[in-house]
Amino acid sequence: MTDAVPDVDLDAVGREGLQTTPGAGSATHDGTGRVGLSFTVHDADPDRTTERQVRVPPGVTVFDAASWNGIAIDSTCGGHGTCHKCKVRIDGTNPVTRHDVRTFTREQLDDGWRLACLVNATRDLSVDVPPLTTRPKAATVGVGRQVILRPAVQKRYVELDEPTLADQRTDLARLLDAIDDLEPKPDLHVLRRLPAALRSADFKVTAVVVDEALIDVEPGDTTTTQHALAVDLGTTTVVATLLDVTTGTPVAVASMLNRQQPFGGDVITRISATMMDPDALGRLRTAACETLASLATQVCAEGGVDPATVYEVALAGNATMTALALGIDPEPLGMAPFVMSAAQPPDLLASELGLSLHPRARVTFFPALGAYVGGDIVAGMLATGMDRDKRTRLFIDVGTNCEIVVSDGDRILATAAPAGPAFEGGAIRCGMRAADGAIEVVTLGESVELGVIGDVEPRGLCGSGLVDAVAELVRVGMLDMSGRYVAAEVAKEVAPALADRLTYVGQERVFILHRPTPDASPEECVVLSQRDVRELQFAKAAISTGWSLLLEELQIEHRDVQQVLLAGSFGSYLSAASAVRIGLVPALPVLRIVAAGNVAGEGAKMALLSTRERAGARTLIEEVTYVELSDRADFNDRFVDQLSF
Amino acid sequence: MTDAVPDVDLDAVGREGLQTTPGAGSATHDGTGRVGLSFTVHDADPDRTTERQVRVPPGVTVFDAASWNGIAIDSTCGGHGTCHKCKVRIDGTNPVTRHDVRTFTREQLDDGWRLACLVNATRDLSVDVPPLTTRPKAATVGVGRQVILRPAVQKRYVELDEPTLADQRTDLARLLDAIDDLEPKPDLHVLRRLPAALRSADFKVTAVVVDEALIDVEPGDTTTTQHALAVDLGTTTVVATLLDVTTGTPVAVASMLNRQQPFGGDVITRISATMMDPDALGRLRTAACETLASLATQVCAEGGVDPATVYEVALAGNATMTALALGIDPEPLGMAPFVMSAAQPPDLLASELGLSLHPRARVTFFPALGAYVGGDIVAGMLATGMDRDKRTRLFIDVGTNCEIVVSDGDRILATAAPAGPAFEGGAIRCGMRAADGAIEVVTLGESVELGVIGDVEPRGLCGSGLVDAVAELVRVGMLDMSGRYVAAEVAKEVAPALADRLTYVGQERVFILHRPTPDASPEECVVLSQRDVRELQFAKAAISTGWSLLLEELQIEHRDVQQVLLAGSFGSYLSAASAVRIGLVPALPVLRIVAAGNVAGEGAKMALLSTRERAGARTLIEEVTYVELSDRADFNDRFVDQLSF
Repeated sequence: MTDAVPDVDLDAVGREGLQTTPGAGSATHDGTGRVGLSFTVHDADPDRTTERQVRVPPGVTVFDAASWNGIAIDSTCGGHGTCHKCKVRIDGTNPVTRHDVRTFTREQLDDGWRLACLVNATRDLSVDVPPLTTRPKAATVGVGRQVILRPAVQKRYVELDEPTLADQRTDLARLLDAIDDLEPKPDLHVLRRLPAALRSADFKVTAVVVDEALIDVEPGDTTTTQHALAVDLGTTTVVATLLDVTTGTPVAVASMLNRQQPFGGDVITRISATMMDPDALGRLRTAACETLASLATQVCAEGGVDPATVYEVALAGNATMTALALGIDPEPLGMAPFVMSAAQPPDLLASELGLSLHPRARVTFFPALGAYVGGDIVAGMLATGMDRDKRTRLFIDVGTNCEIVVSDGDRILATAAPAGPAFEGGAIRCGMRAADGAIEVVTLGESVELGVIGDVEPRGLCGSGLVDAVAELVRVGMLDMSGRYVAAEVAKEVAPALADRLTYVGQERVFILHRPTPDASPEECVVLSQRDVRELQFAKAAISTGWSLLLEELQIEHRDVQQVLLAGSFGSYLSAASAVRIGLVPALPVLRIVAAGNVAGEGAKMALLSTRERAGARTLIEEVTYVELSDRADFNDRFVDQLSF
Repeated sequence: MTDAVPDVDLDAVGREGLQTTPGAGSATHDGTGRVGLSFTVHDADPDRTTERQVRVPPGVTVFDAASWNGIAIDSTCGGHGTCHKCKVRIDGTNPVTRHDVRTFTREQLDDGWRLACLVNATRDLSVDVPPLTTRPKAATVGVGRQVILRPAVQKRYVELDEPTLADQRTDLARLLDAIDDLEPKPDLHVLRRLPAALRSADFKVTAVVVDEALIDVEPGDTTTTQHALAVDLGTTTVVATLLDVTTGTPVAVASMLNRQQPFGGDVITRISATMMDPDALGRLRTAACETLASLATQVCAEGGVDPATVYEVALAGNATMTALALGIDPEPLGMAPFVMSAAQPPDLLASELGLSLHPRARVTFFPALGAYVGGDIVAGMLATGMDRDKRTRLFIDVGTNCEIVVSDGDRILATAAPAGPAFEGGAIRCGMRAADGAIEVVTLGESVELGVIGDVEPRGLCGSGLVDAVAELVRVGMLDMSGRYVAAEVAKEVAPALADRLTYVGQERVFILHRPTPDASPEECVVLSQRDVRELQFAKAAISTGWSLLLEELQIEHRDVQQVLLAGSFGSYLSAASAVRIGLVPALPVLRIVAAGNVAGEGAKMALLSTRERAGARTLIEEVTYVELSDRADFNDRFVDQLSF
């Protein structure tokens, strides 16, 4: 380094350098796979150091690599290159930026000291992290993810000198000079009010910054009040969580059915609606906005929070929900070759979505991988750490459209499988959503034992009940491996106590799960029909074809999968044993199969609590390879193979 | 360089690096003054090379340094670091960016080849510019400035491959991949329409980019139609020029009185209006917007141009006009210590100013130096090349508020002098604006010869006529050096033919310039009163105090000023000889005194025709030192000294 310092350059780093673009032309790395970072984290007590090995995509900054792995490095700007606090010592020769020159002495530069947010890890590195000068806050979000709080929303209370003829700095310069670890750009809206805002508050104000925008200047010290809204924008259900970003804790949660329901239950019917009626896109957009506005009002009321103190919204939705909420023409999403308008929608104002929050509150959307692996799945991958975990993992979000992701700790593949509506109760004779009266657990023995949602009279069968019913009928031998009900005499042999439940509705064989009255006809009962079994077979075959092809692509044996994450509301209720039995997931010990919950919503929370995690979502989509199944010549053969139980 | 390449870094340059921030921490330059660049420009004919020496503020890119001096270097992105075409060879060791690594071979890097837009000139450099592969267009704008056309508005016609299952790139990615020398961000508005726009045009479309925003996708090839609107937003008069940015030529020009006139003739009365009436700011903003909208409509109609093909607007106005047009509270501009809300207003949409141009047309404002050296003056400095000319020059924009800039070819100082309304006909007994009937030229000899605007009966005296009248009266001896009319008997001696014109209106002595009828009373005549002379004395003393203090600050003798630029509509009509005679400008040969015309409007044109010139305006405000006169203890003494002729 001795010779490098005099030639140190003014242009050596910038915004672009701060973004994490993996594979951006390294001399020491080909841009694929991972680089290894070895962190030595020092404590205030010199005898206590911690060693951590992490692997990240090449091009990620050292600061992000640490952040994503829960290793805290001092910073007040959150990795934007402006606060000059994220000092680390790195082995080998690393570029010197002008920010480094301002921060370190020549000797320190020679000794390897750099700002962690300005060094891109393009090869394996050893990094010394000095003791923290402040204890950063962290929160546990997602599936056991420890997130260091670096929210995009930041408030700074300042007491400014009043202007004089000897100090005629503009109002904006005066304010920004006082918060010089951040470099936000002002909204015009703020500039309009800035002169009066400063003077009426005697130049004692709180600057409200969201990411790189100065969105407000509030009188006095309001730093303790900072909220944000995380939304899982589902096709069926929309869930909103109001967060206190100063602590990372949820203040209130609410959910409701997406008001787009009248246009159709799934994404395809809603896309079709826009193709048949030129006004439908506008009405679908309005319905989405109303849903969001209603939830926003509800969580603020429940949490006792002034909506004007909610400064940011993160939305995770599939590609169609995202397009409809933004008013983007969804037609090409609905037909081959399934093309999105853009992977990353631009940020917009919450007011443009009709949300009555802070008037300049920002909305950020998750980027999508493809038309059928949308922002909800990217959020889910973030929440489950699909790109940070060294284990071989399989992530399945089961629904009408089923998204599947496989990671071997190095490569990540994703695909979508059209499972059809069976899991949501569609096309199933007695199918229903997971609502009161839905059978969600089925156990067959001497009798039929049912778990029913809401502790009421069973009215129908939801997805998890369907999977259980089929799995149990296969187990007791009343369904054969091809998915056909066995003959009555065989049934009497294999399950004498249940055989009389195998009967007919019209020409079709059905199994009676629940008989409302002793003399009810089969038509009046909750039954599982032969056709229902076929629907589930098709659904599970689509899914298992998907993951089996992805595993094969990565040359992973089924038994080597270390964890299966079942995501989404359906996945959370599914019995792991039944899922294994019908082959929906690989045949693994049930303890390896985990209900991950609403991971899209958790991902949205993470994006609000940490700009570094948000950047991680963008890095993630660069890392994942999307595999299109409908294009594959071997898909149909595989599918047929997977039909049997 | 041999060792540098393996360590070449991914983070080595970016947006920030592309901006021209002078004084940004150089190891070889202290950030003040200039650095020298020596360009050797090669022609296709190897025997023809041109040598050029230029001096620029440290930190400016080599590309900008060339651009600003009319030296063309290949580029299609206009210096944004994306097209990789601006190849030059530079002496010495210069940082290697990741874009350089992608562009050059190892041998070329060792040999000094770099992308000119990514090298900041932080020390003296020698630069070899290879022959151009395309002949860039240039236009002469401003005061003899040769501007290489690199407009922010760019159109690209592309014929895209249609998507397939094997090529599921998003619509946006497909488009941007086809114009990969630019990296614009899409407006949400564009994303909404993009799917239909591409498909209805069979994927043959024209992308419309303004600076870093993709604002439209038009069907077919529309590249020949590209317009922009340059506006000089004056307190009194607003002038709009419609430009064809493909050629740099004006299509139509129109001007009208600012519709804010009913609120008062000068900035102070308009600021006062906002302080007395809370609705006034909104009404002033509306009046400004209506003025702009009316002019926009007018120039489009006159030029036969579809307003939807006008994609950008550049506005140059003083700080108050800028604030009022944007709806920014102007109160602190109107009272000491005279503070602006912000020096650089953010860009906004033309529709936000009520302009019916392209729906996503952008508006860019010039940055301001201070409350009384606004964007109009910065535009004027750009148009006159105040920062690029090696000569010692004095720039004076004469008006109610008079702005003064002095450059010695290295340092630039600016100040504002409150001249009062005399030059605009205010507070002058027979004063009027430079409109039909205004006396604009006065010559005294055996009789009084008058030049009158519009060739009609004289009705009053405009600013240039006032200066002429006073200068002539001083010359013939009817006004003494203190500015007092001489006694009647002295007048008879020094100018017998004119002496009878020296008479009284009430108690006040007046000189009759024009008598409408032979027997008209002095009250019915166009006269110059003693008080009028005093008003002009005060105005000229304010101005000459301003420039004399600035010249002193730079240790420049008056006689060493090589050029005086008189700017603005008033300056254009002023007689150089009269200005010298009354001491409004230094006593120099009149050939050194140049009427520069509407330089604010010319600067606005330059900003539209070249993003590099626009960046130059931002660099300029970093370079200029603002000198506050009202703060100076010696101001009043100087002022009194300057009162006499």
